[in-house]
Amino acid sequence: MKIVHAFDDVRSVSDGRVGLVPTMGFLHEGHLSLIEAAKSQNETVVVSVFVNPLQFNEDSDLDEYPRDLDRDALLCETAGADVVFAPDVSHMYPSKQRATVTVGCVAEGMEGAHRPGHFAGVATVVAKLLAGVRPDNAYFGRKDAQQLAVVTTMARDLAFPTRISGLTTVRESDGLALASRNVRLDPDLRGSALKLSEALFDAADAFEAGHRAAESLVHIAMDRLVVGRDLQVDYVEVARAEDAGPIATIDTESFLALAARVGGVRLIDNVHLDPDTGIADRGNRLSGPSILYGGS
Amino acid sequence: MKIVHAFDDVRSVSDGRVGLVPTMGFLHEGHLSLIEAAKSQNETVVVSVFVNPLQFNEDSDLDEYPRDLDRDALLCETAGADVVFAPDVSHMYPSKQRATVTVGCVAEGMEGAHRPGHFAGVATVVAKLLAGVRPDNAYFGRKDAQQLAVVTTMARDLAFPTRISGLTTVRESDGLALASRNVRLDPDLRGSALKLSEALFDAADAFEAGHRAAESLVHIAMDRLVVGRDLQVDYVEVARAEDAGPIATIDTESFLALAARVGGVRLIDNVHLDPDTGIADRGNRLSGPSILYGGS
Repeated sequence: MKIVHAFDDVRSVSDGRVGLVPTMGFLHEGHLSLIEAAKSQNETVVVSVFVNPLQFNEDSDLDEYPRDLDRDALLCETAGADVVFAPDVSHMYPSKQRATVTVGCVAEGMEGAHRPGHFAGVATVVAKLLAGVRPDNAYFGRKDAQQLAVVTTMARDLAFPTRISGLTTVRESDGLALASRNVRLDPDLRGSALKLSEALFDAADAFEAGHRAAESLVHIAMDRLVVGRDLQVDYVEVARAEDAGPIATIDTESFLALAARVGGVRLIDNVHLDPDTGIADRGNRLSGPSILYGGS
Repeated sequence: MKIVHAFDDVRSVSDGRVGLVPTMGFLHEGHLSLIEAAKSQNETVVVSVFVNPLQFNEDSDLDEYPRDLDRDALLCETAGADVVFAPDVSHMYPSKQRATVTVGCVAEGMEGAHRPGHFAGVATVVAKLLAGVRPDNAYFGRKDAQQLAVVTTMARDLAFPTRISGLTTVRESDGLALASRNVRLDPDLRGSALKLSEALFDAADAFEAGHRAAESLVHIAMDRLVVGRDLQVDYVEVARAEDAGPIATIDTESFLALAARVGGVRLIDNVHLDPDTGIADRGNRLSGPSILYGGS
C-alpha cells in the first residue's frame, strides 16, 4: 500500500477501475465496510484522509476533530486499500479557494439549516476529489444521508462519470451509530446518546408495521428523546433519499433523520425507509467493541 | 472524425492525450486556431458544440444565437478535429440542474456585473465538460479574457488535472474581433463596431509607449468611443489577467477590456498587456474575409 500526498501521485499509482473512499480519517468499522465494498468492485482502492476545514462551522469542532494518520494507514492496509491519499491543507487549498460548488435545495434543510456553509464545503471538496482522483466509483455511508444526497446531486449535475454508492450504517454493539466523534463522549453522556438510535428504531418498527405518515414517525421518535441537560435536539425530520426534500407520506425511498447535541458533541443518525419493500434499514451492529476504542 | 452526443461516447472514442476546445458552435477562425493548437499538443482533439442556456441572460440572445452543426462539423474535420461532441440540452441538463459552480470575485466585475449569473453558467458548464470529457488540455480564446480567468480559477480550485490555455484573439481584416454574433451586424452598424478595436489599439499604442496607469489607458480608449445612437458602452476597464481583479498601475499581466451594444448586438473585446515585455497583444488579423460570411 502506498501513502501519497498529491493528486498527481494518486493518479499515477492507480490503474484499472478506481474506487475512492473519501474520509476525514480516524477510521472506524463504518469506513472499513466502505473500503471492503470498494475492494470487491475495483482494481485500485484509494482512501482519502483529509479533515476538510471548509465544511466545519466551528473552529473548536475542527480543532478537536480526532486525527491519527499512522493508525488510519494501518487500518487501510489491513482492510485492503491500495493507496492512502493524505493531502496537506496547503495541497487541497494552495491559494485562496474561490470556486465553490453548491447544490441548491438539497442542502437547505436539516444539516444545511443548522450548519450554514457546511454542504458547500462538502460538495466542493468532494468535487475536487472526483476531479483530481478520477475514480470510477466512490463510496459514502448512509449515516450521512443528506450528505449522500448532496454528493449524488453534485456528481450527477457536474457530469462526473463516477458512480456514487451509499452503504448501510454501521453501529456499535449498543446501537450508537459509529462516528469518529464518539470518542469524545464520556460514559455519562453515552446513555443520553443511545436515545438517538433508540428513537429511530421505535420509528423504524412503526414504519415496518405500516405507518407511512412522516409526521407520525417523527412524533414516535420524539417521544423517546427526553430533552434534558445533556440532550439538545436540533431536528427530527423525514426527507426523500434522492434529494433530501420534505415528504409528507412516504411513497418513495426516504430517511428519518435526527441531530442532537449530547454534552458538547453533536451527533446525527437516521434510518433509511423503503416503502416498496416495507423495510427500514437500521444498519448493522458490531458484535464487540469498536476499533475506535483501541480494539483491532 | 466522429460526431457523438454523449459524454460516455466522447471518452470511449478518445485515447492518448486529449485536447478539448469548448465552443458554442458557428465556428470562425478564432475557434480554428484553438483546434490547430490542440492538434499540435494532443493525440485526440475534441470540439464541443453546445449553446449553453445557463450562461445567457436574455432569451432573445439565446434564441438568436446562430447554429449550424453541419457547417461546424465540416470546419472541425478540415481543421483536424477527431471528435465533435454535440450534446442536446437534455443530455447536458437531464434533470433540474441543482449544482452550480461559482468563482467569487473573479466573476464580479465587468461582464459579471453586466450579465448576472453569466459566469456561474460558464463555470458550471465548463466544469461539466472537464468532468465528463476528462481532457488533458483545454483551449480558450483570450478575446473572452474574464471568462479565461473564470475558467482557469475554476479548474485550479476544483483540482481538475486539465491545463487551461488562453490563445490570442483572431480579428477580421478590418480589426473587428471575430465573434459568431458578428453575422448579426448589418453594414451600417459595422462602422460603429470598428470603434471598439480602434479604441483598444489606441490604448495598446500608449501602453507600448510606456503608459502604465490604468486610468490613463481607459481615457485614451474612451476618447475613440463616440457614444451615440448605435454605440452604447457598458464598460471600459483594466483588470489583472489572472483573476480579473482591478489594477491601478499595470505591474503584472493585465488586459484592457470593453463591452458595448452596437445596435442590438452586444460585443466585447480586449487587448492583453504584458508589463514584463512591454508588449500589447492586439491579436492576429485575417488577410481576407472570415468564413463567418460564407468563405472557406
